[in-house]
Amino acid sequence: MKFVEKLTRAMQTNDSLLCVGLDTDPKRMPEGISIVDFNRAIIRATSDLVCAYKPNLAFYEAMGDEGWSALKETVKNIPDNIPVIADAKRGDIGNTATAYARAIFDNLGFDATTVNPYLGFDAVEPFLSYEERGVIILCRTSNAGATDFQDLLCQYGDGYRPLYEIVALKASQWNIHGNIGLVIGATYPEELSIIRRQHPEIPFLVPGVGAQGGDLAQAVRHGIDANGRGMIINSSRQILYASTGNDFNSAARQAATELRDEINRHRSGLA
Amino acid sequence: MKFVEKLTRAMQTNDSLLCVGLDTDPKRMPEGISIVDFNRAIIRATSDLVCAYKPNLAFYEAMGDEGWSALKETVKNIPDNIPVIADAKRGDIGNTATAYARAIFDNLGFDATTVNPYLGFDAVEPFLSYEERGVIILCRTSNAGATDFQDLLCQYGDGYRPLYEIVALKASQWNIHGNIGLVIGATYPEELSIIRRQHPEIPFLVPGVGAQGGDLAQAVRHGIDANGRGMIINSSRQILYASTGNDFNSAARQAATELRDEINRHRSGLA
Repeated sequence: MKFVEKLTRAMQTNDSLLCVGLDTDPKRMPEGISIVDFNRAIIRATSDLVCAYKPNLAFYEAMGDEGWSALKETVKNIPDNIPVIADAKRGDIGNTATAYARAIFDNLGFDATTVNPYLGFDAVEPFLSYEERGVIILCRTSNAGATDFQDLLCQYGDGYRPLYEIVALKASQWNIHGNIGLVIGATYPEELSIIRRQHPEIPFLVPGVGAQGGDLAQAVRHGIDANGRGMIINSSRQILYASTGNDFNSAARQAATELRDEINRHRSGLA
Repeated sequence: MKFVEKLTRAMQTNDSLLCVGLDTDPKRMPEGISIVDFNRAIIRATSDLVCAYKPNLAFYEAMGDEGWSALKETVKNIPDNIPVIADAKRGDIGNTATAYARAIFDNLGFDATTVNPYLGFDAVEPFLSYEERGVIILCRTSNAGATDFQDLLCQYGDGYRPLYEIVALKASQWNIHGNIGLVIGATYPEELSIIRRQHPEIPFLVPGVGAQGGDLAQAVRHGIDANGRGMIINSSRQILYASTGNDFNSAARQAATELRDEINRHRSGLA
């Protein structure tokens, strides 16, 4: 099944735009539990509340070869009906991008991955050629430094546009298999709104609510598509570490329920 | 010792600007030899001919957890006097970039890494804070798709400049610890020349000679610094797979010697 279809079904089945970011940090888990067991408990506690999971590869790489195994095991433990996005932000030239795509899609078994557009089309194409998998391109990220380059006004056609808009435009031109998404931070509702108007059908992966301070109501208002979907809203720390004790899984369920419901309140009436 | 100092010493000791890219592909090695043993043989055959080694992480990640161990072992097998650059092209927000920096510098033990600038300063800063390690920022890459975004004319100050020039300018502003380098492809000698004039002291990592077709004479002429150094010229496939038989190591030595000497012929008289 194609990524976008799997995603839409999970959104409908669980009535949810919430994605849980499995950015598991051994220092913030209860003592005496392994990464794999912690993640498994979080997944069991939340898999009927989410539209996707998104492990960030950095946290697993920071643990070395052990981390890589834990990541692979974690992907396997996610129910088949919930898509799993590798937050990898890779970008490299052709034959190297092919090796990354193989690592992420074939070896680790992810349904989708984030990629960095700076190297241009041939860095993205090896991912796109996996037509069933999703390729979510960094467009306007949620961090402060995003303004350094992404907001630069660039010559394009007869006029000038910010770089992130040109990234979105190119991405939509590359989208022949319908498997592209865009990363746009919840911290920039105006940019969400601009890109949504220009690209009504492209799904957005939206980080930056919770710990990063993005305004959820604004983000949903500006990012939602005509069907009341089109946004994968990620939260990591707020859910994973809702409690630092042994009740971390029930606390995670509670936090995920509240966030899903809050998102749904903002969705209702807007679609 | 600081990365740039270690690099300069290796360049002087081995009279070389050549970097061997350890982009080891199991399909192209002689049968019956492990990745670690293949890399060890290449390193033994070339370590008096190079100024650096550069494994691209993609090729190891494509092998899964086994690949991660092989990478770690390979870094350990490189003599202490030769700097090792992780070609990782990472870029992510603050706390995630910190996890990548830990993975690459602390866990794997690299002397330097390549990073992607698209996310701006806070994605680069966690790497820069390792003052002894090198941070080599993608500026003008060697692939065809580089033109998609890197060449866009962007508003900057009173005028317009291509994005890659603005990346180089920002990088030089961020360079308070003197540990920044720039990636500029050998396939774009004019861009090498522009950035060298604007930034006389920043070292360049230059991919794209050999298999990618960059003109070596042009690249050296335009990229070299006032001391006849300042370029880390990478070659991967041309050296690793100089022979597909069991004489791969002596063939690699031969190919590395020829390339180093050719680079030196272009250097002489230019410095």
